[in-house]
Amino acid sequence: MAEVENTDRDRPVDLRSDTVTTPTPGMRAAMARADVGDDVYAEDPTCRALEERVADLLGTEAALFTVTGSLANLLGVRALVKPGAEVLCEARAHIARAELGAHAAVFGVTSRTWSHPRGLVDLAAVRELLAPDAGPYFVSTAAVSVENTHNFGGGSVQPLDSLRALRELTAASGVGVHLDGARLWHACAATGVAPGTYAACADLVSVALSKGLGAPVGSLLAGPAAAIADARVWRKRLGAGWRQAGVLAAAGMYALDHHLDRVAQDHANARALADRLAEVAPGIVEPTGVQTNIVVLDLAAAGIRTGATEVAERARAAGVLVSVLGPTALRLVTHLDVDEAGCRHAGDVLATALK
Amino acid sequence: MAEVENTDRDRPVDLRSDTVTTPTPGMRAAMARADVGDDVYAEDPTCRALEERVADLLGTEAALFTVTGSLANLLGVRALVKPGAEVLCEARAHIARAELGAHAAVFGVTSRTWSHPRGLVDLAAVRELLAPDAGPYFVSTAAVSVENTHNFGGGSVQPLDSLRALRELTAASGVGVHLDGARLWHACAATGVAPGTYAACADLVSVALSKGLGAPVGSLLAGPAAAIADARVWRKRLGAGWRQAGVLAAAGMYALDHHLDRVAQDHANARALADRLAEVAPGIVEPTGVQTNIVVLDLAAAGIRTGATEVAERARAAGVLVSVLGPTALRLVTHLDVDEAGCRHAGDVLATALK
Amino acid sequence: MAEVENTDRDRPVDLRSDTVTTPTPGMRAAMARADVGDDVYAEDPTCRALEERVADLLGTEAALFTVTGSLANLLGVRALVKPGAEVLCEARAHIARAELGAHAAVFGVTSRTWSHPRGLVDLAAVRELLAPDAGPYFVSTAAVSVENTHNFGGGSVQPLDSLRALRELTAASGVGVHLDGARLWHACAATGVAPGTYAACADLVSVALSKGLGAPVGSLLAGPAAAIADARVWRKRLGAGWRQAGVLAAAGMYALDHHLDRVAQDHANARALADRLAEVAPGIVEPTGVQTNIVVLDLAAAGIRTGATEVAERARAAGVLVSVLGPTALRLVTHLDVDEAGCRHAGDVLATALK
Amino acid sequence: MAEVENTDRDRPVDLRSDTVTTPTPGMRAAMARADVGDDVYAEDPTCRALEERVADLLGTEAALFTVTGSLANLLGVRALVKPGAEVLCEARAHIARAELGAHAAVFGVTSRTWSHPRGLVDLAAVRELLAPDAGPYFVSTAAVSVENTHNFGGGSVQPLDSLRALRELTAASGVGVHLDGARLWHACAATGVAPGTYAACADLVSVALSKGLGAPVGSLLAGPAAAIADARVWRKRLGAGWRQAGVLAAAGMYALDHHLDRVAQDHANARALADRLAEVAPGIVEPTGVQTNIVVLDLAAAGIRTGATEVAERARAAGVLVSVLGPTALRLVTHLDVDEAGCRHAGDVLATALK
Repeated sequence: MAEVENTDRDRPVDLRSDTVTTPTPGMRAAMARADVGDDVYAEDPTCRALEERVADLLGTEAALFTVTGSLANLLGVRALVKPGAEVLCEARAHIARAELGAHAAVFGVTSRTWSHPRGLVDLAAVRELLAPDAGPYFVSTAAVSVENTHNFGGGSVQPLDSLRALRELTAASGVGVHLDGARLWHACAATGVAPGTYAACADLVSVALSKGLGAPVGSLLAGPAAAIADARVWRKRLGAGWRQAGVLAAAGMYALDHHLDRVAQDHANARALADRLAEVAPGIVEPTGVQTNIVVLDLAAAGIRTGATEVAERARAAGVLVSVLGPTALRLVTHLDVDEAGCRHAGDVLATALK
Repeated sequence: MAEVENTDRDRPVDLRSDTVTTPTPGMRAAMARADVGDDVYAEDPTCRALEERVADLLGTEAALFTVTGSLANLLGVRALVKPGAEVLCEARAHIARAELGAHAAVFGVTSRTWSHPRGLVDLAAVRELLAPDAGPYFVSTAAVSVENTHNFGGGSVQPLDSLRALRELTAASGVGVHLDGARLWHACAATGVAPGTYAACADLVSVALSKGLGAPVGSLLAGPAAAIADARVWRKRLGAGWRQAGVLAAAGMYALDHHLDRVAQDHANARALADRLAEVAPGIVEPTGVQTNIVVLDLAAAGIRTGATEVAERARAAGVLVSVLGPTALRLVTHLDVDEAGCRHAGDVLATALK
Repeated sequence: MAEVENTDRDRPVDLRSDTVTTPTPGMRAAMARADVGDDVYAEDPTCRALEERVADLLGTEAALFTVTGSLANLLGVRALVKPGAEVLCEARAHIARAELGAHAAVFGVTSRTWSHPRGLVDLAAVRELLAPDAGPYFVSTAAVSVENTHNFGGGSVQPLDSLRALRELTAASGVGVHLDGARLWHACAATGVAPGTYAACADLVSVALSKGLGAPVGSLLAGPAAAIADARVWRKRLGAGWRQAGVLAAAGMYALDHHLDRVAQDHANARALADRLAEVAPGIVEPTGVQTNIVVLDLAAAGIRTGATEVAERARAAGVLVSVLGPTALRLVTHLDVDEAGCRHAGDVLATALK
Repeated sequence: MAEVENTDRDRPVDLRSDTVTTPTPGMRAAMARADVGDDVYAEDPTCRALEERVADLLGTEAALFTVTGSLANLLGVRALVKPGAEVLCEARAHIARAELGAHAAVFGVTSRTWSHPRGLVDLAAVRELLAPDAGPYFVSTAAVSVENTHNFGGGSVQPLDSLRALRELTAASGVGVHLDGARLWHACAATGVAPGTYAACADLVSVALSKGLGAPVGSLLAGPAAAIADARVWRKRLGAGWRQAGVLAAAGMYALDHHLDRVAQDHANARALADRLAEVAPGIVEPTGVQTNIVVLDLAAAGIRTGATEVAERARAAGVLVSVLGPTALRLVTHLDVDEAGCRHAGDVLATALK
């Protein structure tokens, strides 16, 4: 297991995001020997193999390798929603908060939102908002987007039952479902549900290789063949039709081979960290709510008066990096590049910083 | 008063919307004698006079005469929000529901929403959503849009206190406020608050002449001179830079002269209608909630099993037109072309249709 | 004939554009008695009558009444070209120069151009540029747009033969044709060709009522029923879904009834003006090239050293308004509001101003 | 030299484009040992080093590493042109033909074009088209884009004099210049002019690493620091804000170290190929016009009746791949993966296929 973790005592323990992982020696070796071609002409054998593998894993007809999860989401939403129609999502969904408004800015898609403390699907709220085929005077709902696990909701897993109910509700009215599965692997690890089972609740699904799985670059959009073919053209139109991307696809293949199983370790590390901090600062996090690799700390709830930025600065000074989500909120994300010892160290540092 | 109301017993009582009014004889005469010029060159004297008058009324530097309220709103939101940034609004706001997603489709503006049963500003919800200057990775909130009165919320008036609190909250963080005042005249009539007092709570304000005021075509966007000058260019870019629009501006001037005061009559008619129907079908509407010229009927709440479409059809057969808002919701809007007798007649017809 | 011309010695002779006309008393009377309804619900009888009349005149299935010719063109180009595909047109076409880039800004349509001194279709150039169905890597040509008459080309008429050849060339490759017929009436008056004959060379056609025909506001887009129905939705999305527009449609009906035949008079006036100025300043214009109501003056070609702006200023001081097209180019447009005497007066004033 | 060329007799000689190169063993080794970080947070040391190096090479304040040359061009044009304004370019420029209309589709930028047989800047045509600050009614020219070398013009080099004259002409009127330098290295190799000398003629410059230089993925946009910072945000908004892209940047660094000097060899190979084919089929290409690594064959000019597709098929069957540019036009591009012997072989195969 040591092989896959390139932690290094001299570098800080970086819990800002699981996107910060750097490729392991084994992954680099795989990249160095990758068979490549021009992916614009669909001639890169490693890209095609990766796309087929992910499509198989998710049970979809096809998949497209994209430079980011944001691009996979953007093309996925576009596949379901025309300009002027709307996508519904939770108010802190990645597509609503962390993609710079691209669905509107690039594709003219409008959005309405419901709010849930953990980012979960709220069927009653969706039912209230849903406006399928609203005619020539009103905005029609064309898709609902669900993020699983939900990043800003604290890595929370969408209950399979509610995804199935959402699927049923929307399918009945011709509304599509987009699944932002940047951390779908974590949902699977937490619940034992297969990726394809989650994917079956959606029309278009994105998954990331560069977050929990540790590849340097790359995500995929999976779905029906025709939608993926069209997404391929738009990928090029957006200037993201890369050439010999097989070197990156090889990293993705390696990640699927070697890093999928170890995601559970990140979950255990996150839970241990949450346990530790809840002990030190009761109320700061509910450890049983930490289902995957993300720990969101609520300083206000713990009665801590120090601001989030100040706590983050203190931690940084002591070699631990965390994300500031708001004036009194911090986020810690465990991943491939932080081992159990690193997390323990982070716990110590934060325990001090929170005082 | 008879002069200004061109009701006609042979025509149906049309309560679908206050947009259906037709110009009165006096208004037509004013149109026929209007002094006009080419408004693209800003040479139409009547357009300019109208723009100045409305700017004065609202206490803004300038105003722009637009073909619809939707266009005034679209240009108003654009003035405050850049592509990829967001506007916050209530989930059933006109800009979210009834403008075909134009702010996203045309200007790349994204949106998040809160939900309120009467469409009111929910300061706690706004505070939760607000993300000003969110940096290069997150969507920044650039504006909050408020509709006053709120059409799909039942013509409800936004409390002045909450508009002022919203203004304070947003101004502190550099976020703009857009006021969709398509029926601002009704809010003023209901509360006695001056238009300029409401307008002072916002950066950009739209008002309509073609709804409660009875002009055939036209709205205005009011705000700072620079924003209005820029909106004028974009009005032309969107193909709405009309030529001798003074014939329409003259109708608007006439409406401001003669129809502003009579809005209160529409409110009284709406309340009487609500009283009547609440008596017939308890629970269908709370009459004291009918603050202006819009009555929303909740068939389900009254235990009525007949669907909204069926009730509307029955009413239509008897010469009364109403809007279907949803499977169990109807909307009645009083206006210039429906007098007290017409409303009584509508009450009779609906009382029967609801049985 | 006196009735239709509301010239007035106290007002300047305004030759800047034929858009500056103001409605005649007869037209105003027609507007004052117009039967109207809510055009958003397609219930305005006068709008519908106008739409049907223009569709009949052009031999198309349907037509849509729009607030400007720019909007009719914008919706017409959109009907033929998807985002990322291209429209070809002459470099000084109205859609390329005078619509503020709307086809790109609003609908993401790209463009390439050929250049012709009189704005005419250059079949060899079109053939060279044409790239139908160019596949997933290249921009596909989806439409060619032709302006007839061509405004900045000096009101020149597109030869019917070349329109037919263009139609044949493009139809063979599945490329559409858009006809910007803002001054199609003038082409018809100049050649005796019926509007429908020109329209038969295109898929979508725009015509204007507010230019040579003297209506205050309004144009139409004509074409297949499905395209027009879709354009109606987008008209609303762009905020131009007007309400009781019948007052304007009535002006358009009146214009078609009374002003179509008099366009030839504008042509005669323009030619006389050109004759006069060519005499005074040989080379400034080739009178036989003045086919319709537009006279473009080339000061440089006549060896006149005074700049166009200076000449225009001198003329303005003497009560004659003209357009500056460039440092050494002026444009004079004859129309309904300038009679023969007015044109003679303009000739005198300009003859002096050019010295 | 053998080290840098990974040609392989069993693979076809692929002259379709210089984008098809695969990384050499040395380049792969450099990628495998690259120091990386999260480039979204600007923490990837290799990306930053590459950006600084290219900015230095071009003499600009800053540079941004992008996934494709199309993206670098798209962001470069956006930096200069607002929605609704126009960019002028040659009719077969890469941005006009091979980027799927992205500047219009994504950023609402419109375009007009001049045509030149070799894709060169035509100053008279630019002067004719140029419309800086055209006011609120007309489209303003905001930038001219020049491709150097010009791909579809046959790899032709833009004369430095005309680039300087263009710069002077446009700067005087506040119009920007965008330089599409996907093959700027080739222009430099052909003329001995330094990259910075060309770059000094423009505001924003793109250069590619994945074409003649043989890196698998990546281009850069270079220009003023503020424009590049803004482009970085939009890179992310378009979903192309990659993470540990240092593995690709390392390939780019390696290419700049080892492959810049060998571009001249590709030019010699292209010229030899042109000589050979001009001998076999006089008129098919003017060898002295082959200035860089691109050979465009004009079958019609050589009196060859076989279509381009058929010739390409014959060549493919014999192990030589070429691009079809049109019914009677083929393109051959020499590069890192085709050595002198490969080109001789291609010459033999094509000589036969052309018969």
